[in-house]
This record gives sequence, C-alpha cells and structure tokens, in this order.
Amino acid sequence: MAKVIIIGGGPAGCEAAHQLASQGIDVELVEKNNETGGNLNNWYQLFPDRKFAKDLNDILKQNLNHPKIQLHLGMEPRKIEKNKEGKFLVPLSDGSLLEGDSLLVSTGFKIFDARRKEEYGYGIYENVITSVELENMFYNHSIKMANGNTPKRIGIIHCVGSRDEKVCNYHCSKLCCITGVKQAIELRELLPDTEIFCFYMDMRMFGPGYEEMYREAQEKYNIKFVRGRLSEAAENLNKQLQIKVEDTLVGKPLRMTLDMMVLLVGMESSEGSRQMADTLGLNLAPNGFIKSQDPHYRNNNTNVEGVFVAGCGSAPMNLTDTLADARSAAMNIIEYIKRI
Amino acid sequence: MAKVIIIGGGPAGCEAAHQLASQGIDVELVEKNNETGGNLNNWYQLFPDRKFAKDLNDILKQNLNHPKIQLHLGMEPRKIEKNKEGKFLVPLSDGSLLEGDSLLVSTGFKIFDARRKEEYGYGIYENVITSVELENMFYNHSIKMANGNTPKRIGIIHCVGSRDEKVCNYHCSKLCCITGVKQAIELRELLPDTEIFCFYMDMRMFGPGYEEMYREAQEKYNIKFVRGRLSEAAENLNKQLQIKVEDTLVGKPLRMTLDMMVLLVGMESSEGSRQMADTLGLNLAPNGFIKSQDPHYRNNNTNVEGVFVAGCGSAPMNLTDTLADARSAAMNIIEYIKRI
Repeated sequence: MAKVIIIGGGPAGCEAAHQLASQGIDVELVEKNNETGGNLNNWYQLFPDRKFAKDLNDILKQNLNHPKIQLHLGMEPRKIEKNKEGKFLVPLSDGSLLEGDSLLVSTGFKIFDARRKEEYGYGIYENVITSVELENMFYNHSIKMANGNTPKRIGIIHCVGSRDEKVCNYHCSKLCCITGVKQAIELRELLPDTEIFCFYMDMRMFGPGYEEMYREAQEKYNIKFVRGRLSEAAENLNKQLQIKVEDTLVGKPLRMTLDMMVLLVGMESSEGSRQMADTLGLNLAPNGFIKSQDPHYRNNNTNVEGVFVAGCGSAPMNLTDTLADARSAAMNIIEYIKRI
Repeated sequence: MAKVIIIGGGPAGCEAAHQLASQGIDVELVEKNNETGGNLNNWYQLFPDRKFAKDLNDILKQNLNHPKIQLHLGMEPRKIEKNKEGKFLVPLSDGSLLEGDSLLVSTGFKIFDARRKEEYGYGIYENVITSVELENMFYNHSIKMANGNTPKRIGIIHCVGSRDEKVCNYHCSKLCCITGVKQAIELRELLPDTEIFCFYMDMRMFGPGYEEMYREAQEKYNIKFVRGRLSEAAENLNKQLQIKVEDTLVGKPLRMTLDMMVLLVGMESSEGSRQMADTLGLNLAPNGFIKSQDPHYRNNNTNVEGVFVAGCGSAPMNLTDTLADARSAAMNIIEYIKRI
C-alpha cells in the first residue's frame, strides 16, 4: 500500500492529506505545532470576501478525520534518508520512524521579523504593531493604543520586509497589499472617525475581486492611499509616531503624526523549508523559497525524485492558490506513485 | 464507466483531460478551433523564464494522445441539458451528442479589443500595435514600423482595457504588467539602441521571480518606467505618435513622441464562458467571469452540481496557476464522480 509523508500541516498540507487519503493512499502528516492550520490560525477574516479564517480552518481540520491519515502533532522530522528501494525514511523528534514512497514538503512561510527594520521602531515604540497583531485585535473587536485610548490616526505601512534590498529581500510578498486594504476597511468599520492611511509602493491587487475591494476602500470607506515609502519613524512625548515618508506622487517628503502604525510584514521562507532543503538536498530559489523543477509544467516537483512541494514553501500565495496547489501536488504524487 | 466532458481545449482543458484520463476516466474534449492550446498559441516566450510557449504547448498536446481522451476539434456545444439521471447531454455543432457525468468549463479568456479605446488610435494609426501582435513580431525576430524602419522610441502602455471604468472593466487583468516587462526586455535584446518606455499605474509583479525581472529590466536593460496613464495619442505627418500621459510621479502631464506604441491588452470573459453560463445557468461575477462557489475552498465548483470550472474562465491567471487549477479541478471531479 502506497504511503505519502507530508511535512507541514498548514492549509496546503491538510488539503493534500485529505485529497490523497480520499484516493486510498496512506498519509502521515507531520506538524511541528500542537495544532494544524499554520499561519491561518493567526487570521481573523479572509480577503476579499471577509469570511472567517476559522471556518476554513475547521473544514481543513475535519477533513483530517480519515482512517488513512495519521497525524503527528508537535513533531519535527530529523535527518531524512532515501534508501536503495527509493523509500523515504523520516525519523521524528519523538524517536519514531516513518517510511513512505513519496514526500510532500508543505512547510509554508515565516512572517518577516519587523525588528529587522529598526528605523520603523517595532519593539521600540509602543504603538507600532504588525499586521498579525492587528488581526488579533480584530478578533477581540477592540483597537486600542498602548495607553488604552482609541487611535485617531492610523498609518498602514506596506512592503515591510519585502522589495527591500536593505533586508536582502528582493521579492514581493504578494499578499500584503490586499491584506492592507482588508485591514483598512475593518479598521474603518470599528473606528468610523479615525483617519486611515495606507503608504504603498504599488498596489498589487492580483486576485479576483481585489481591485474592486481597493476601489471600494477609497470610494466607500474613505481610506487614503499615499504612494510613498516610509523612511523613518520616531516617537514624541505623547507617544505619537512622527513619520517621514517620501511621497513619490507629489515628489517631496511628507511628515505626519500618527497614533498607531501597522506594519504589513512580508513573507519569507520558513525554517522548516530550509531544514527540508538541507536534509533532502532541495534547490532553493534566490529568495530562499524552495525552487520548483519548472515554473510552468512541473511547479510541484522538486529537483529530488519523489519529493514534491505545495503551498507557500515555494512562493507566497493566497489561500485559493495554496489549496489549488495542494490538489495539484496530490495529483502529481498519485501519478508518481502509479509510476514507481 | 465515468465520463467527463470538457469544454475548451486551452492549457486548462488539456491538462485536466490528461489528469482525468490518467485516472481511468473517459474524457470528451471539445475545442472550437482546429487545434488545442487556446491563447497559448499566440505567445512566443513565457515569463519569467523565457521558455518557448510552443514547448509547453507541445507537452500539453502530446498528453492528449491517450486512449481515454476523445478530441472534438472545430466543434462547439449547443444547448446543454442535464437529464433526470444527472447526466449532461451536450449536442455538438456537427450534430453528434455527447453524454457525461460531469462537465468542466475551461473556456478561457478573450483579449480586449483595443479599438474600444478609440483615443489610443489602434486600427487608426499604423504604428499602434497590441501586445499580441508584438509576440508575432518576436516570433519572426523582426521589429519594424509600418514603413519598414526600425523604431527608435517605443512606448508600452499598461492597463489597456483593464482597471478602466470607461470600458466597464473594473478588474485588473493581472498578467499585462509582467508581460510588459518581458516584452520590454525582448525588445531591448533585438533593438539595443532604441529607447523603451513602460507607462503603468501600479507594477503588479505578483509571481515568483517577477519582481526580480522588473528590477533587472531597469538596472540591466535600461527600460524606463513612467508612472502614468495615457490619455490620448495622435499621429503627426511623419506617422509618429504624439502621446499625452499624466505622469503621476512628477504630477504634471507629459508629452512625448513615439515611433511605435504597444498596447498591453487586457483579458475579458470569453464568449465561450458566457455561452456556457447562459446554457447551464452559471453565475457570473460582476466582471463577467464565471463565479466560483467559494473563492477559498470551492474555487473550481460552480453553482450547478457537477459543473466545474478551471483556468481563466473564472479569473485571469498565469500558466502556472492555470495548470494547478486544472489539476485541482480534476481532483474535485474525481471526488464528485466517486460520490454520485
């Protein structure tokens, strides 16, 4: 009986496990945390339809209740080997050993550590938060400054840790722009009298309904979009943030005082992806994500026969694309297993 | 024996046919043209890796040589019915009748008709061409103006027919920006002494390696990117194009003379998609593309049980995403067939 080992229980890993199990294939799903869902656990509502992340997460979790799926929570793989018969031997952190015919790497992404952009003041000034922390505030329906007051002017900063050679990330994280638009609208709903600004380089509305949501944010929700890059932030005596932005539309620097600043933190290759690349000898792209064999036809294949990749391990992608990519990887694995 | 009818033989339809047939399912693939490949037939090289479109097209075509796949070229479906047993009855234009358990709509997209932006002068001025026509010039390795001369200054216009309420298209076509970058680089290689400008609103580099290609276009290939929207073009006595662009970065209108203007024409819902929506009662999104049941978990499902959608019928997407989407749809169809 064919068996597939999946490393990483985020949306891609869960969906691939479900699809493979539905086709009668045994699945061992290894997740380092004590629950599945990965970064989806940090989100409150999804773009562009504002559905609850939890509802999607619940579907993905329920699908794992399948006799063909063995879940290994709180486990990490150690050094993986491929034996002479082409089987993958995966020792886990609890000392057990898994053996499978194929391996799916769905190790997702890591959120950029905003402390690395020191000039933005995250971890230094109390009213600088990340987009992930803002999601948690949405979850609690309460947007407050550190002193408990309601912010009267909020700035959302795009491209934090993305498209930025200073932090060695040339790549675009793709999802921050639409996340910024969604969060601006959610802020407006909770804080009707607050001024809300988005500071962006290019508004990358790439998915269905995204452009329409961006337009709505301007026309219906009165969000102000300023094209410009934040150069620095400092705190005044009132704990407000004084920022300097190069507004490239009017061609001169802009100074402004904010009560709260939200950093749209980008996506980087996860440690799990790097560990997998290391132990399996997978090629990495220049941006650190796992390199697929061919960007068009073999996007789920890696340079190692029998090892596949799905989801944000290979590139930033939204949930729709992540789930499609997981099913695509599952199809490729089914084909591979038939062949061996 | 289960049978699936696929309407549309572009990349999505071909890949889904191949995957379904590989799983032992009979496939009837209906394509209105006399060859498969759809819009891929119009392209010379792919972004971002500059592979030849023909090579990918050949793989997709070869995969159709499968005993489980019946190809119907030069055929269109007439009024489709679903009978009491849940079977789909699809009469074809040659009078034959297909019967299947499930239907996949992979009717792709239509290229925006540039004549609808009359102020850009396509079809009026001889040196205004579309990005599709430029691909054909690349195919012939020859970039010439109508009078046979080499253009000394070329302008590439982004967002033609996209993000434009004047032509009732609010949506972003997603692929034009990176196509513009790719074409600018190809032009530079063929015409080392020509000035090349891209006029854009936002540079939407959403895929792996796109941002890096955009950077390279500026740094290595000396392509000039101007943020601004073309308002009008006129021809002078020398058949040059005098354009007026609102350069939103310096905040004033820019006038310039070009020898050739390339319009990056956007993507619209195809007539095939609209016909399928009409005959099957499929919901359409406000932008005219086929509306999926849920943008996250059921992106290949439509509002009609047993009818699925894959590829650009539901939204503009690149080839990587189109092929993943096709495999995702195939997985969903396999699950559906098991269930009925």
